[in-house]
Amino acid sequence: MAKFDMKEIKIVDVQVQDIRFPTSLQAQGSDAMHKDPDYSCAYVSIITSQTDLIGYGLTFTLGRGTEIVCVAVEALSFLFKGQRLHNIYTNFGQFWDRVTNESQLRWLGPSKGVTHLAVAALMNALWDLWAKIEEKPLWRLLVDMSPEQLVSTMDFRYISDVLTKEEALEILKQQRENDIETKIERMKTRGYPAYTTATGWIGYSDDKVRELCAKYLTLGFTAFKIKVGINLEDDKRRCKLMRDMIGQDNLLMVDSNQRWDVEEAIRWMQGLAEFNIYWIEEPTSPDDILGHRAILKH
Amino acid sequence: MAKFDMKEIKIVDVQVQDIRFPTSLQAQGSDAMHKDPDYSCAYVSIITSQTDLIGYGLTFTLGRGTEIVCVAVEALSFLFKGQRLHNIYTNFGQFWDRVTNESQLRWLGPSKGVTHLAVAALMNALWDLWAKIEEKPLWRLLVDMSPEQLVSTMDFRYISDVLTKEEALEILKQQRENDIETKIERMKTRGYPAYTTATGWIGYSDDKVRELCAKYLTLGFTAFKIKVGINLEDDKRRCKLMRDMIGQDNLLMVDSNQRWDVEEAIRWMQGLAEFNIYWIEEPTSPDDILGHRAILKH
Repeated sequence: MAKFDMKEIKIVDVQVQDIRFPTSLQAQGSDAMHKDPDYSCAYVSIITSQTDLIGYGLTFTLGRGTEIVCVAVEALSFLFKGQRLHNIYTNFGQFWDRVTNESQLRWLGPSKGVTHLAVAALMNALWDLWAKIEEKPLWRLLVDMSPEQLVSTMDFRYISDVLTKEEALEILKQQRENDIETKIERMKTRGYPAYTTATGWIGYSDDKVRELCAKYLTLGFTAFKIKVGINLEDDKRRCKLMRDMIGQDNLLMVDSNQRWDVEEAIRWMQGLAEFNIYWIEEPTSPDDILGHRAILKH
Repeated sequence: MAKFDMKEIKIVDVQVQDIRFPTSLQAQGSDAMHKDPDYSCAYVSIITSQTDLIGYGLTFTLGRGTEIVCVAVEALSFLFKGQRLHNIYTNFGQFWDRVTNESQLRWLGPSKGVTHLAVAALMNALWDLWAKIEEKPLWRLLVDMSPEQLVSTMDFRYISDVLTKEEALEILKQQRENDIETKIERMKTRGYPAYTTATGWIGYSDDKVRELCAKYLTLGFTAFKIKVGINLEDDKRRCKLMRDMIGQDNLLMVDSNQRWDVEEAIRWMQGLAEFNIYWIEEPTSPDDILGHRAILKH
């Protein structure tokens, strides 16, 4: 018998904490646009009527302004308090729509900036809660969902000209037939594939990059990201150093954190081509789709 | 002699007020996505060392969540306090860049949502202050600026693949030669051209729309906007009513406030074509540039 019965459980409170870490002291997290970030978070706890059932979610920030996200979480919390979990999870996509399209708050940008970050922490906490109710890790909750359940958690309004709900369903059905049991076994034995960014923050000395590459190679990493974008000659030196450390068979990626305009991005990446870069993250404004296409074509 | 000397004046404080109006009580401001807005604002006052010189700016909200924008203004205010006005206005574009790219706060989305709204109120207050120092209305401050000064107030980083600073400069120079004095005279005698949205909120009865059309025609308006997007048959009736009231020579525009996906937008606007709609505002997600192009082509 299941430990928790969704029909009986209500959300009784939403709490949020402003948690900051002084990572800027050692240039951890530093990149071409954020030279001194204090990697921090707004940490949300969704408290239920079942005292041993709490959902946790967080949204990432760079320090200053985390209090703005916390106030946004508080402003959204009235939509969560008093709700029965059963009503939320039987139509999760509709609940998401209710939260992001609240008729007065949506003006502040439901899919943008501060309220977007606040919604992310809250929805992450709901996903965490769902997995706990089902007594599974979150990845297994998702894998065990039917394609119909999965698409019901999403809102297709603004992407239906590119991908309809029916098309998404068809893709998921095909994927499911494609040897799902082997994939589940691999997740259980090998875990998530991951790359590391920890070796290449822009404020790190060459010696520190070398030392960290050695450490993460030993840990089994096969993909490494390095921050670029302030000075091309520095970037060439650092990419060479990284490539020398990790060898030709491992993957090397770069991230300029929105630093460039479109032409500069093309020129810069041509300058780094010899290091066999797997991909570039945020070469320019993340909203400039046509700009990204132009960069891709070069 | 000028009343104010920029070199002497500093910003000593930034104050922000959360001001709300219960417009939802009479459906004022209602549209297809915001059925009960309380048209409100975060109201910013930039206090200077010159007691009779204060800059005012506001950013518009729909009620709930205005407190989030106020907290964002407070979070940004350290960038303003203590600044000499001379340093701000001699390189306004650079100051804007400093505010929107503050290394920790920019993570929250400098050109998105809550922080975007907060920056807007603060920068509007700085423009108001500038006009007061020059003892001119703001439009005249802008008109009197040289093309070089105007482009220096802007940041071209993310649009340089479409419009460079040099191209913008060239456009402004050509415009300036194009009979600027006549245009200034027209502004002085006739004021700003404007359209009205006040006649067509979606929650208004047909009788109220009729009454308001008559009123705004008397006031001299020649362009009218009506909210659409919930029900096509209702929209046809309301557009016909509006067109009958304002006649064929005045302009009629519609606004669906992001209600539709791309296909629905095309179908709906074809349904309203007979009313000779001048333009449609926000037919779908405001960020979907390719979607807007697809709608335009139909």
